[in-house]
Amino acid sequence: MSEKETEKKGVSRRELFGTTAKVATLSAMGAAAGVGALITPEEVRAASKNRAEVAPGDLDDYYGIWSGGQSGEVRVLGLPSMRELMRIPVFNRCSATGWGQTNESRKILMENQTVAEKAYLADKGGIHQCGDTHHPHMSFTDGAYDGRYIFVNDKSNTRVARIRCDMMKVDKIITVPNAADMHGLRPQKYPRTGYVFANGEHRVPLPNDGRDLNDPTKYHAIFSGIDGDSMEVKWQVIVSGNLDNVDADYQGKYAIASCYNSEEGTTLADMTSAEADHVVVFDIAAIEAGVKAGDFRTIEGDTPVLDGRKGSKYTRYIPIPNSPHGVNASPDGKYMMINGKLSPTVSVIEMAKVPALFEDKIKPRDTIVAEPELGLGPLHTAFDGRGNAYTTLFLDSQMCKWNIDKAVRAYAGEDVDPIVQKLDVQYQPGHNHTSMGETKDADGQWLISLNKFSKDRFINVGPLKPENEQLIDISGDEMKIVHDGPTFAEPHDCMIVERSLLNPSQTWNLNDPQFNDIRAMAKADGVNLEEAEHVIRDGNKVRVYMHSMAPNFSLEEFTVKQGDEVTVVITNIDDLDDLTHGFTLSNHGIAFEVPPQASASVTFTASMPGVHWFYCQWFCHALHMEMRGRMLVEKA
Amino acid sequence: MSEKETEKKGVSRRELFGTTAKVATLSAMGAAAGVGALITPEEVRAASKNRAEVAPGDLDDYYGIWSGGQSGEVRVLGLPSMRELMRIPVFNRCSATGWGQTNESRKILMENQTVAEKAYLADKGGIHQCGDTHHPHMSFTDGAYDGRYIFVNDKSNTRVARIRCDMMKVDKIITVPNAADMHGLRPQKYPRTGYVFANGEHRVPLPNDGRDLNDPTKYHAIFSGIDGDSMEVKWQVIVSGNLDNVDADYQGKYAIASCYNSEEGTTLADMTSAEADHVVVFDIAAIEAGVKAGDFRTIEGDTPVLDGRKGSKYTRYIPIPNSPHGVNASPDGKYMMINGKLSPTVSVIEMAKVPALFEDKIKPRDTIVAEPELGLGPLHTAFDGRGNAYTTLFLDSQMCKWNIDKAVRAYAGEDVDPIVQKLDVQYQPGHNHTSMGETKDADGQWLISLNKFSKDRFINVGPLKPENEQLIDISGDEMKIVHDGPTFAEPHDCMIVERSLLNPSQTWNLNDPQFNDIRAMAKADGVNLEEAEHVIRDGNKVRVYMHSMAPNFSLEEFTVKQGDEVTVVITNIDDLDDLTHGFTLSNHGIAFEVPPQASASVTFTASMPGVHWFYCQWFCHALHMEMRGRMLVEKA
Repeated sequence: MSEKETEKKGVSRRELFGTTAKVATLSAMGAAAGVGALITPEEVRAASKNRAEVAPGDLDDYYGIWSGGQSGEVRVLGLPSMRELMRIPVFNRCSATGWGQTNESRKILMENQTVAEKAYLADKGGIHQCGDTHHPHMSFTDGAYDGRYIFVNDKSNTRVARIRCDMMKVDKIITVPNAADMHGLRPQKYPRTGYVFANGEHRVPLPNDGRDLNDPTKYHAIFSGIDGDSMEVKWQVIVSGNLDNVDADYQGKYAIASCYNSEEGTTLADMTSAEADHVVVFDIAAIEAGVKAGDFRTIEGDTPVLDGRKGSKYTRYIPIPNSPHGVNASPDGKYMMINGKLSPTVSVIEMAKVPALFEDKIKPRDTIVAEPELGLGPLHTAFDGRGNAYTTLFLDSQMCKWNIDKAVRAYAGEDVDPIVQKLDVQYQPGHNHTSMGETKDADGQWLISLNKFSKDRFINVGPLKPENEQLIDISGDEMKIVHDGPTFAEPHDCMIVERSLLNPSQTWNLNDPQFNDIRAMAKADGVNLEEAEHVIRDGNKVRVYMHSMAPNFSLEEFTVKQGDEVTVVITNIDDLDDLTHGFTLSNHGIAFEVPPQASASVTFTASMPGVHWFYCQWFCHALHMEMRGRMLVEKA
Repeated sequence: MSEKETEKKGVSRRELFGTTAKVATLSAMGAAAGVGALITPEEVRAASKNRAEVAPGDLDDYYGIWSGGQSGEVRVLGLPSMRELMRIPVFNRCSATGWGQTNESRKILMENQTVAEKAYLADKGGIHQCGDTHHPHMSFTDGAYDGRYIFVNDKSNTRVARIRCDMMKVDKIITVPNAADMHGLRPQKYPRTGYVFANGEHRVPLPNDGRDLNDPTKYHAIFSGIDGDSMEVKWQVIVSGNLDNVDADYQGKYAIASCYNSEEGTTLADMTSAEADHVVVFDIAAIEAGVKAGDFRTIEGDTPVLDGRKGSKYTRYIPIPNSPHGVNASPDGKYMMINGKLSPTVSVIEMAKVPALFEDKIKPRDTIVAEPELGLGPLHTAFDGRGNAYTTLFLDSQMCKWNIDKAVRAYAGEDVDPIVQKLDVQYQPGHNHTSMGETKDADGQWLISLNKFSKDRFINVGPLKPENEQLIDISGDEMKIVHDGPTFAEPHDCMIVERSLLNPSQTWNLNDPQFNDIRAMAKADGVNLEEAEHVIRDGNKVRVYMHSMAPNFSLEEFTVKQGDEVTVVITNIDDLDDLTHGFTLSNHGIAFEVPPQASASVTFTASMPGVHWFYCQWFCHALHMEMRGRMLVEKA
């Protein structure tokens, strides 16, 4: 079957109904025999299995947790409908929720900034305006998603953020020292997360303070082990080459990162001159022992930095054809797939062979048990839990389904073709992901192809185009495209989580640590947040405490003086699910959400004398539009 | 038929297939008669008419232009699939595109700020962090969309923005003086736009500079006529009460705005005490004559402000039951619907009677020709061009379809029920909109219900929930819900535009006025943007000019000194559609898009010595990840 024919296998409306019609015809044949006149709902459901359309009133089966790429956010989608259910602001500023504007979100964004970063940002409002989220991954316990946290990196400003799955909001953001431009990120899978492994992609001088400015021999890329519970960087390892992607094994022993630029050049020509690059295998226990033994130095801050360059006991380097990219552990725990990118191959490392490599009993390439040639531009591989792998071919704009066992047998010399099917996607797929596919519970229902271009698939929206997330049914023998999902910058990476594994809360709790600062401030002012209707003056600082209960703020007006530093604290005492209030202060560029049973605050200088209305911008009640009041600013 | 039964008419997956099955059965009956064995594609298409699902490779029929509510953006959707095709940053900051960060976008955001606003924002980065977009509407010519501009207001910071339909980007933002909290907005429909009418909702002292701070008798709401071509406020009219929504007629003579708080109170209790409020009818020609005659004063700036309070020759006040809300002109040009909100009625004004009202030949209420009682909480009305109106009942959570002619006949005493159908929506609909329904070309295919709550319709995503945009098929006799569309804050308002009416460009042109400043700067520096690879030092100011052509920036490195004020100008000389580049400067919170044949710049202080990589964050080429370079910052 030609690839063109294969592409046509994607379900079109016509063909889908063709299937139904066939069922109906069979049924009608029964009718002719007097057995029954209509197809049954079960038959219809069978015929429509794994459609993207989720009918009104029906629920999606999966959460999709989506990187927002250079939008800086994380998105929650429903699958298979591919509908965006929520945006979680992370590294971006969010007009709707006040992320980057409330004192609480600013604290999260600022508290782990480096010294240089703080100085740079001082006259820029104290926080970065953007981020480049790449790889969202959930915390694991025993190789399975555990529903505690989602971790995601910001390539652009070298940060890692953590999202609480109970509230679907960020609670921690750290800037990783010494590293430059955080790229690959994965949590430890076993026994639990544990570590979040993060790759500083670019090589920079250590320390990067102006010395060794143009001496690339003194540039280094750095690998970080972050404690997922405390969000502290526990240790870092200097490597040879540029770090790209990473994955953790299912045994809790190793992390493997792909590296390009083994040439250690600084220009495109230099970086791509060699025929082979490598992956670095990190021995976690050895690194921990090295830290304990004091075999490290510190550079920026007090993070232990170990030397893991070629020849180190902490690492092993396995040669891989030019510029490997994605690293993906198979759900059975046996293999690590290294995607070739500029090589048409995927190199399959057998994890059981890695201890012997560290013991120097075998050579690095002896860990490779398969290296199928799949097509041009293999970037990432996903799994169905039935022994098949799905690799994106970004140059061929295809998804290649191949059988892992056959690939191993072929590498061993058997005359067998591991490639099962190639499916055209539109166009240039980067990451892909299968439902539950990065866990031991890979369920083989859905595959997502995150395509960088959407050429001809959507109506024209101007020079800036959407990208395209294509949903592919992999439940049967053949991959079938069932949905084209346009997406704003950019479908970088995602995960697909069975819906029973996430059980977010409906409301907050004022005793949550998120509100520690507000509670302490209110206590000092003698204010009970839930009954607050207080204006506390403290020199030229004014703290305005209100509670909100639909459709009222507890204060219909408050008065301050021009030049006062005003802190407004709103506590939402409604406790119904979905009863979020908002506080918008007109003409002051101030707006934030206050979810049920939560509190939020913002601080500003009341520099404009006059009457300024505030209002609730989150629909809450029949008299929502009437939920407002006045700030009176007396002329100084 | 009970409303419960009606709700069940919404197409569920089960019922949809039931329909198909019925077609199939008919076909099978034919088969039994030896006529034909399978249903034809035409039959299948007929049975699936007006489904939301758009199969992979098929295109949407309509552009949906969507307010992003408190997200501050405007969204472009495809209909009927309800897929988000693009986000247009407007009043928000955008991490992906650099809106609010590039010099070009900052100029648009800052150039029309008021004096007080500029001073307030001086230590906040110069621009507001948020907005509250409410009503996106396209420019009109002869009562039809003309594809030039989309106008949208920011309620929170009293602004109006204009989006160029050719590029789908904002080119103008103005802060409207004297007004407070811009709410209703509509463009003039005839002969063309012309005016954009905008309602300052809240009553504030004029001028709002600290005088008359707590004397609400001196508070006023103000109506603005903005020139849609120049984006200048041509005149303003002071009214009695608070201005809410507005629409323009199809004759080019009048605009009508709903008002609440005819009591002119400042608290919820005071504002809702009276049984009746009113709409204000504005006589455009009379206002223009008044301006010409000098019958105005100026307050903030030199905008002519006319007195249009009760008794003015520029306005007429038509009493409407308590707190009217939405104002909607019927596509035949005959009627203006005033939605009752706290009254269960819609008041129908016959536009042909308005001249007589201004001539005082009839009383205000004589312009009302129908006032059907539809249900609880009528907010907005849309039209199908077949004589039917569709009104959201936000308290009943229903869409009410009613016949306009029957409503007029009933008001005249005939025993006829105008209500055709009530359909349950989930839940609390605000705005609604029909395909092409606010133009004379209303086509009666689709109706959108923008619901504020999504209770039970989607899987749980935490305390903050999506809202719900339900797509309703109105092509037949009965309304049918075909899709639930979750949405991030908030589905405030939208319009649905037949796709042939928008023909955005694929690329920019460097001669576009958008690039005037960059061109002038480059010219002064003797730099040709398209061949730029220059670092121009000018004291401690450094201008770095690069062009980008996939997969390269024209400079692989540049060197500056710590403390330099650096302006980076990137010109994308690729001219393929969708070949957008980006420029991200690591650890500096700098990232922006550079579309094909466009130029963009950003200015920052290089305060951090060391090596900082820059890279292209918008996928552009097989070697996209390799498109990067170094900024070397020498220690001061």
